[in-house]
Amino acid sequence: MSPGFLSTQAQAHEKRHKVTVIGSGNWGSTISKIVAENTKEHPDIFEPEVHMWVYEEDVTIPKDSPHYDEAVGDQPQKLTHIINKYHENVKYLPGIKLPSNLIANPSVVDAVKDSSILIFNLPHQFIDRVSSQIKGKIVPFARGISCIKGVHVTDEGISLFSEWIGDGLGIYCGALSGANIASEIAAEKWCGTTIAYDPRPWTRCPRTHQQDQARACACRIPPLDHDTFQLLFERPYFLVSMVSDVAGVSLGGALKNIVALGAGFVVGLGLGDNAKSEIVRRGLLEMIKFGKEFFKETVQPETFTIESAGVADLITSCSSGRNFRCASHAVEQGVSVAEIEAKELNGQKLQGTTTAMEVHSFLKVHNMEKDYPLFTAVNDIIEGKNTYQDLLQLINKRRN
Amino acid sequence: MSPGFLSTQAQAHEKRHKVTVIGSGNWGSTISKIVAENTKEHPDIFEPEVHMWVYEEDVTIPKDSPHYDEAVGDQPQKLTHIINKYHENVKYLPGIKLPSNLIANPSVVDAVKDSSILIFNLPHQFIDRVSSQIKGKIVPFARGISCIKGVHVTDEGISLFSEWIGDGLGIYCGALSGANIASEIAAEKWCGTTIAYDPRPWTRCPRTHQQDQARACACRIPPLDHDTFQLLFERPYFLVSMVSDVAGVSLGGALKNIVALGAGFVVGLGLGDNAKSEIVRRGLLEMIKFGKEFFKETVQPETFTIESAGVADLITSCSSGRNFRCASHAVEQGVSVAEIEAKELNGQKLQGTTTAMEVHSFLKVHNMEKDYPLFTAVNDIIEGKNTYQDLLQLINKRRN
Repeated sequence: MSPGFLSTQAQAHEKRHKVTVIGSGNWGSTISKIVAENTKEHPDIFEPEVHMWVYEEDVTIPKDSPHYDEAVGDQPQKLTHIINKYHENVKYLPGIKLPSNLIANPSVVDAVKDSSILIFNLPHQFIDRVSSQIKGKIVPFARGISCIKGVHVTDEGISLFSEWIGDGLGIYCGALSGANIASEIAAEKWCGTTIAYDPRPWTRCPRTHQQDQARACACRIPPLDHDTFQLLFERPYFLVSMVSDVAGVSLGGALKNIVALGAGFVVGLGLGDNAKSEIVRRGLLEMIKFGKEFFKETVQPETFTIESAGVADLITSCSSGRNFRCASHAVEQGVSVAEIEAKELNGQKLQGTTTAMEVHSFLKVHNMEKDYPLFTAVNDIIEGKNTYQDLLQLINKRRN
Repeated sequence: MSPGFLSTQAQAHEKRHKVTVIGSGNWGSTISKIVAENTKEHPDIFEPEVHMWVYEEDVTIPKDSPHYDEAVGDQPQKLTHIINKYHENVKYLPGIKLPSNLIANPSVVDAVKDSSILIFNLPHQFIDRVSSQIKGKIVPFARGISCIKGVHVTDEGISLFSEWIGDGLGIYCGALSGANIASEIAAEKWCGTTIAYDPRPWTRCPRTHQQDQARACACRIPPLDHDTFQLLFERPYFLVSMVSDVAGVSLGGALKNIVALGAGFVVGLGLGDNAKSEIVRRGLLEMIKFGKEFFKETVQPETFTIESAGVADLITSCSSGRNFRCASHAVEQGVSVAEIEAKELNGQKLQGTTTAMEVHSFLKVHNMEKDYPLFTAVNDIIEGKNTYQDLLQLINKRRN
C-alpha cells in the first residue's frame, strides 16, 4: 500500500479521505469546485485540500480579464499557476471562482498520491494513458467515481468507462451522470445528478486487513459508502441521488443521444410537442429494454425511469441538447445531419450519430435491429437508407 | 336488456359492436373521427355507423367558410344538421373533415341506443346529468371509456370520472388519457395515448347468460377486450397502449398540472433546462408516491414512468402546456399566477391551480403535506405563503 497514506504528515488526519479530481476541463473544474466546497465543510471526513490534475499548458490571459497583469503582459503562463494564483480556470471555466482549497497539480502521479477517492473527469481517450501512469502509485483501497458520460460500444460488446478505469487500476470505480450542464452547475443553478456506486463494503480495515467492525486496528478509516459520496458531491444547487446500478447510469448517458436525434427529427418535421414526448417515451422503453437485454439483472428499469441519469437527462437532451438541435436543423434545411454537423459544430462530432451507428452495428451482430425500432430508424436515417419523412412509418411498422 | 340490441334491423350485424361517442367538443369530435375511421375499416367487429351525441345549438356559418350557403345566408342552423351535411364540426373542430359514417345526433338517448361501447368525452360537470338521462336505456353489458382528463379530489377522497360514470350507469368504464392535444390529433399529427381497461372478462354470453366459451347461444358477441379497444382507437397517427391501471391513467392527467406549474416557476426564474428536468423528475416521483399511497396495489408505477398518460403527457405539459406557460409568465412579470390567469385566459381557469389546492387540502387531512415537497411548495406559492424564489429551498428542505 501507499506509504504516504497515514504518513507522519497525515497522521493527524488519519480518519479522513483525501480527494483528487483527475481532469480539469469545464466539467472537471466544476466537479472540483463542488467537492472542494464539501471537503472544506466536512473536515472530519475529508482532507479539505483537494488536488485537481491539470494537463499543463501555457495560457495567455487576455487584456480584458480581471486577472490580466501589466507586469506579465501577454507572456504565456502555466495554467496550474494561474488557477492556483487566481482561483479560476481562465481557459476552461472562465468567470467562475474556484475554492482556495482546490489545488491545481500538473503531475497526475503527485495529485493522486495518498488519495482514497479518485474522481475521473477527462475525455475517455485519455483513460488508458492516465491509468498506466498512476497504476501502482495509488492507495490500493482507493475508490473511483467516473464522471465520463456514456459507454464504449463495439460489435464485441459494451464496456463501461468506470469498469475500464477500475480494471486498469485494480480498484472499484462507480459512475456519476445526470441532467448536468457544466456551465449551469458552475453558476450554481439548481439540478440533480445520479451516482451509481456498488462495491463490496469493507468487512476488514482496508489498510491493515484487521477486522474493521471490531476496530482492532487504529486506522479508523471512515467508510466509503453511499453516505460518504453523497456528502462529497451534494450541494444545495446539485442534488445527488445514490443508486447501485452503474451500468444503467452509464447507458443512460449514451443512449439518450440516439433518442435526442429522433426527437429532433420529429420537431424538424413540424409534428409538435406530443409527437416529441412520444419519441422520448419510446426511447425510454428501448433504453430499458437494451439495459435489461445486455446487462441482465444488474440494470434496474428505475435508473432510466426515475433518475436524473435517466429520464431527466433524456428530457434535457431532447429539449436543448446539441444532438436534438442539429437533428431538427437538418430536417428543416433538408440536408443530412452530417452536413449540419460540419456547418454548425466547428469540427466537433455529434455523440448521437456515433452512438447510433455503434449501437446499430452491435444490435446487428445480435440480429436484434427489429427489436429496437426507434434506434434502428434513427440509424437508418443517418446512414441515408431512409428519409426523415420515413421515421414514423418505420417506428409504427417495427413497433414492439 | 335493451330490446334494440340484436333487433330485427340489427340482426345481420349480431356479431358487431355499436359505438357511440357522448360529447362533441374539439376532443369529442376528434375521438369520434378516430373511432369512425376504425369502425369503417373493421366492419366485422363494429357497426360502421358511429353516433356522436351533440348538445344541440344554433350556429351561423361565417361568410368565409367553404360551407357558407348563399341561400341560407346568416340564418342560424342546427349544429347537428351542419355536421351531418358538411361532415365538419364548424364550431368546435373547424377545418377538419369528419368521416361520413359519423352521425351527429341531438338526442343522447337515441345515440346510445343499442350501443355496447360508450365513449364519454364531455366536460365532467355534465356527467351526472347525462348519466341520469341514459340510465336504464343502454345495453346492460355495454362498456364505457372515459376520455375526460383528471380526477375529482375533495378532502374526503379522490374519485375517478370513469368510476363516476360506471357507478352512475351500472356498467364498467375504463379511461383514455395521454399526451394528446385535440387539434394536433385532428390534423393527424403523430402521438401516443394510453387506455386503461380492466373489467372482468365475460365467462358467459352477456346477453343470454349462457356459457360463452361453449358458444351455446347464437349471439356470438365479439369480446370487449384490450384487442377490441386497440382496434377501435388506434390509427397510424394515434398509437394506443392498453393497460389495466385506470387509477394511474386518471391520476396522471390531473397531477401533471401541479408539476407543470413548478416547471414554469423554475423556467421563469431563469434556472435552465436541467432544473426543469429535475422538477419533472421530482414530480414523477411524487405522482408515483401519491398513486401508491391512495390507490395501493391497483396503481402501477409504470403507468407514470413509461406510459403516454404518465411521462409523455407530463413532458408535454411541462414544455408547452397552459399551466407551464402561465406559471413562467407570472414569475417573469413578478405577479401572481391568478393575475396571469385573469390577464391571459379570457375568464378560463387553470386546472393546475385548482388541482394543486385540492390535492394540498386532501394531503393536509391526511397530515402528509411534508411527504410531497413539490406539490406542497407549488401550493404554498400559489396561495402566497411563499414566493417563487423560495421554491428550490422548499423542495430541498422537505426532500424525501
